[in-house]
Amino acid sequence: MALVAARGTLLRAGVRLGTEAAACGRNGTRRSASHRVLVEPDAAAGIATIKFKNPPVNSLTLEFLTELIICLEKLENDKTFRGVILTSNSPGIFSAGLDLREMCGKNPAHYAEYWRAVQELWLKLYVSNMILVAAINGASPAGGCLMSLSCDYRVLADNPRYKVGLNETLLGIVAPFWFRDTLVNTIGHRASERALQLGLLFPPAEALQVGMVDQVVPEDQVHSTALSVITQWLAIPDHARQLTKSMMRKATTDNLIKQREADIQNFVSFISRDSIQKSLQMYIEKLKQKKS
Amino acid sequence: MALVAARGTLLRAGVRLGTEAAACGRNGTRRSASHRVLVEPDAAAGIATIKFKNPPVNSLTLEFLTELIICLEKLENDKTFRGVILTSNSPGIFSAGLDLREMCGKNPAHYAEYWRAVQELWLKLYVSNMILVAAINGASPAGGCLMSLSCDYRVLADNPRYKVGLNETLLGIVAPFWFRDTLVNTIGHRASERALQLGLLFPPAEALQVGMVDQVVPEDQVHSTALSVITQWLAIPDHARQLTKSMMRKATTDNLIKQREADIQNFVSFISRDSIQKSLQMYIEKLKQKKS
Amino acid sequence: MALVAARGTLLRAGVRLGTEAAACGRNGTRRSASHRVLVEPDAAAGIATIKFKNPPVNSLTLEFLTELIICLEKLENDKTFRGVILTSNSPGIFSAGLDLREMCGKNPAHYAEYWRAVQELWLKLYVSNMILVAAINGASPAGGCLMSLSCDYRVLADNPRYKVGLNETLLGIVAPFWFRDTLVNTIGHRASERALQLGLLFPPAEALQVGMVDQVVPEDQVHSTALSVITQWLAIPDHARQLTKSMMRKATTDNLIKQREADIQNFVSFISRDSIQKSLQMYIEKLKQKKS
Repeated sequence: MALVAARGTLLRAGVRLGTEAAACGRNGTRRSASHRVLVEPDAAAGIATIKFKNPPVNSLTLEFLTELIICLEKLENDKTFRGVILTSNSPGIFSAGLDLREMCGKNPAHYAEYWRAVQELWLKLYVSNMILVAAINGASPAGGCLMSLSCDYRVLADNPRYKVGLNETLLGIVAPFWFRDTLVNTIGHRASERALQLGLLFPPAEALQVGMVDQVVPEDQVHSTALSVITQWLAIPDHARQLTKSMMRKATTDNLIKQREADIQNFVSFISRDSIQKSLQMYIEKLKQKKS
Repeated sequence: MALVAARGTLLRAGVRLGTEAAACGRNGTRRSASHRVLVEPDAAAGIATIKFKNPPVNSLTLEFLTELIICLEKLENDKTFRGVILTSNSPGIFSAGLDLREMCGKNPAHYAEYWRAVQELWLKLYVSNMILVAAINGASPAGGCLMSLSCDYRVLADNPRYKVGLNETLLGIVAPFWFRDTLVNTIGHRASERALQLGLLFPPAEALQVGMVDQVVPEDQVHSTALSVITQWLAIPDHARQLTKSMMRKATTDNLIKQREADIQNFVSFISRDSIQKSLQMYIEKLKQKKS
Repeated sequence: MALVAARGTLLRAGVRLGTEAAACGRNGTRRSASHRVLVEPDAAAGIATIKFKNPPVNSLTLEFLTELIICLEKLENDKTFRGVILTSNSPGIFSAGLDLREMCGKNPAHYAEYWRAVQELWLKLYVSNMILVAAINGASPAGGCLMSLSCDYRVLADNPRYKVGLNETLLGIVAPFWFRDTLVNTIGHRASERALQLGLLFPPAEALQVGMVDQVVPEDQVHSTALSVITQWLAIPDHARQLTKSMMRKATTDNLIKQREADIQNFVSFISRDSIQKSLQMYIEKLKQKKS
């Protein structure tokens, strides 16, 4: 089993970020009660910045997912905020994606709950009425990449270590169909076919060329660029923009909604296989050893 | 309400073209009985040039739409003509798109009649058996852009004022799903998503890059380029080319045909809203003031 | 009838290759019993190279199709081989595509049998569990192009005479819907629309730009490049890659499978028309005259 193939990337990110975790939370005005999701509101501008703070690598634990979903729901229902910037509180890693520990050594009910939360996050992001801009200030594989693909615009820091992509095959697993749909909607069928089969992680220049991101800027300009992009989008009448966004994306989310339970069952039965569990355990062990 | 946002563009076009309207109709051999649609036939070549002549901005009034539809129908049924060039008789504006006055202060029956005519024009253009080439010799927003997108090939004059795009959101309205389908078929899903949400109007170089047009040439070469393109397409056996075109496009028009009445009802009920009517009135007032 | 339009290309290929046929079969280790399909296995690497050897132009005769299908089936069922390179044993022509003699002067049962074999080849190629790389070392029109489009990756020799494309309209015929689907999945809707209507044959630089091929390399590096590409793909866990490939392509093959008989009937009734038969006969006569 080849879950090991992606080890390098994640381990390096994990180790490096472990030492940077102390730098978290220096960015002032947090009002959220969450521990893992910092919200920096700018009510005057109508913009909120969501900062992922789930050290060391912002992996999507069930707890982090839940906080993110609640946070997005609150902002969605608060007319003050029309635009949201998604970014990491730990420059260097945007998000490592799904948390392998949620998918290993637990029971089917837990796997089902976890997968439903992953679905829910995507459903919230992909057809949000708000303008979502990803300020990608670190590596963004797998589920991390999916979050940015679900935004309206993606700004990536120009750092060769900040690769983005859906690299599931490298771990021996398969991106679900709605990851595929999100990617195909972004970079087209042929590029998706190649990227998904090879589990490609694109460095900035290639990410821009293939369309995984819309803009690559120097690392210290990621947030300001995201802000100026969101300001441009805010100039459009909300109602017309929202209906247009829905017209472009709703068919894709409807497709998951109508087979949501089946998708959960698929995930649970796939992840419960002995061979997959064994691979995940080995992989997690190796991550631990490398870390210590 | 932000109908005002697009004011600049349209007003400038309107004012400028008002003064150029006197230049209309200098182009010889018209045989059509229409007043707003000049047809210059070249029977030997099998090509007809349709020139929009609905000053000041070739907006799609019901009368103009009707003449265009009849003109296309006649050419379609006349075996002499295998190719058509669509262009403007008033260089500077290709077409400003839908006429706001047809959508304001009238009764539901009028709105329904108007919308059916807009649908009909698109249905006639998009799956025409003839080769259609747009010689875009002026600005081409909204419905004007849709007409060119429905052709087989688009040549745009290299003038920074000649922007093309579906800018409906700037007026607070939403492009119907078949505008979307036509755009997605031309520039893909991601570029459409961004262009439609932001109501982007692309200047020539950007229009070429994103695929809104196939070629950008100096202003005085637009017509000759369109002619040489159409000559290339005429070299293909008609029957095989027509079946191929139908294979590529018929699913898209079938999609409107099967929900045509619902689409009309949607339009009528949207446009009849007090808020929309008020916005359109204000917008038209401002256009008038600016003009005088 | 304009079947004559494509004459130049095919004739030139046919005449030239007729004289080169003597060079066939110099490439060592063949183990296949086929006469028209050479298989060079590299069991250690898990790779087999399939060389088309149906002189003069590797046209898809029923016999050649049958051998190809059997060969692919054997490799598919042999766990030793995870990747396959498709190439021509006669540099200069990859494959001229469908064989006109199979579609002319025969009875409906023969046409049906022939078309079913063409479908079968595509179904085998497009969703093969193996990694397929096309090493395109010669011209590749129509059905030849379809074979390469059905692979996972395409490497084209940088020779201006090696054009690739679905040029059916030039012969007065129409590519079937599954040729269209394969092309749209590769180069998108708009580029397909233009390429299919005009029957475009792209020289290497243009083929690369539009996405008909993934890489253009000097002629003597085609095979080594294909090998290094396949090695990259082999690094991905088979099971995950295969499921991902199926997720991207199965809907497209399912679409043919569910209307396979109707597609055969369409072909038979189209090809049986007097006008089409007359055109094909004239075309074949001209090919013969030119050759002698």
